[in-house]
Amino acid sequence: MVGQALATRLVELGHDVVMGARDATNDKAAQWASTAGATGGRAAAGSFADAADHGEVVVNATSGMASLDALAAAGDAALAGKVLIDVANPLDFSGGFPPSLSVCNTDSLAEQIQRAHPDARVVKALNTVNADIMVHPERIPGAHTIFVAGDDADAKAVVVGLLTEFGWREILDLGGIQAARGLEMYLPLWLSMMTAQGTYNINIHVLKP
Amino acid sequence: MVGQALATRLVELGHDVVMGARDATNDKAAQWASTAGATGGRAAAGSFADAADHGEVVVNATSGMASLDALAAAGDAALAGKVLIDVANPLDFSGGFPPSLSVCNTDSLAEQIQRAHPDARVVKALNTVNADIMVHPERIPGAHTIFVAGDDADAKAVVVGLLTEFGWREILDLGGIQAARGLEMYLPLWLSMMTAQGTYNINIHVLKP
Repeated sequence: MVGQALATRLVELGHDVVMGARDATNDKAAQWASTAGATGGRAAAGSFADAADHGEVVVNATSGMASLDALAAAGDAALAGKVLIDVANPLDFSGGFPPSLSVCNTDSLAEQIQRAHPDARVVKALNTVNADIMVHPERIPGAHTIFVAGDDADAKAVVVGLLTEFGWREILDLGGIQAARGLEMYLPLWLSMMTAQGTYNINIHVLKP
Repeated sequence: MVGQALATRLVELGHDVVMGARDATNDKAAQWASTAGATGGRAAAGSFADAADHGEVVVNATSGMASLDALAAAGDAALAGKVLIDVANPLDFSGGFPPSLSVCNTDSLAEQIQRAHPDARVVKALNTVNADIMVHPERIPGAHTIFVAGDDADAKAVVVGLLTEFGWREILDLGGIQAARGLEMYLPLWLSMMTAQGTYNINIHVLKP
């Protein structure tokens, strides 16, 4: 759902997107490609490796519990030097709702990904809002905040550019990739706030005096 | 610092406060009592047990790593039936900055406190802003949000009343005490945002369409 929302919006904005899946003949990815291709840029489907090979920017929008495997399948060589936007959350639903995190506190999924692919330029972003708000922030009226965290300043600048294309106006750089711990550990509060507010479409605005 | 900020503000608002410490003759607590007593209600100092014995409402503003010991010293009998506002964060600074959490993900300090004192009516609140903003939310201009979580609706209503006296206007009830996990796990993001914004005085406003 997150991958399709991001890919569709990127194609609408004129970008060329290859939607990757475990299986290069994945039905949903092929269907997405045939639908989205009419709207702007070029849309195609392929394996995780095809997608990583294609992109200047690679988006990890896989399930957090499967992300390390998916990126291993994409291949270290294909990811080297690329901007890798990690949108995933390491949510473990095996114990029911609310989920726990499969990694947290002294580590994060984004850091695990960066360690597994040291030549990729990992930027944590967009994991703090749902798919709809990621690509249409204007659907929540008023100012609200999206975050980036990563060790590579140039990679963060590329991501800030894409976020700006999506319509984000308040983008807060939290520093190095270690700040992904906070962005992922925000999930339980986010889930509680969603339940309390009765909608998935919530976000926060960071204020100071 | 948090305890003194809350106690001072409560006395200013006309409440009678006993500041508890491990040692009933604690110098800082005695000094606070002699200074704060002039401003409104009655201010006194004593042991943790004296404080818990005194209050209709008990505030845990001890260091998160020491909270269970402090509340054990306060005594289960003194806490029974009381509204117990847990303001503490289980921050472990033993590994330096940024701190990790000593409990998180599948449990929280507030839940540990509720289990240790089943007859207390624990409400997690105020742990998401610094001491100054807790009692003077107007120091951040514009609308911003404070949270409550707890299993006892009447206890939460008492806490909402006190928060309203402090000046809070947007108070979001997140449900049962398990939601304290999210409120405590928000800390790493909060610390990153403080660093990025260059001030301790930050808070978030929760928005929806």
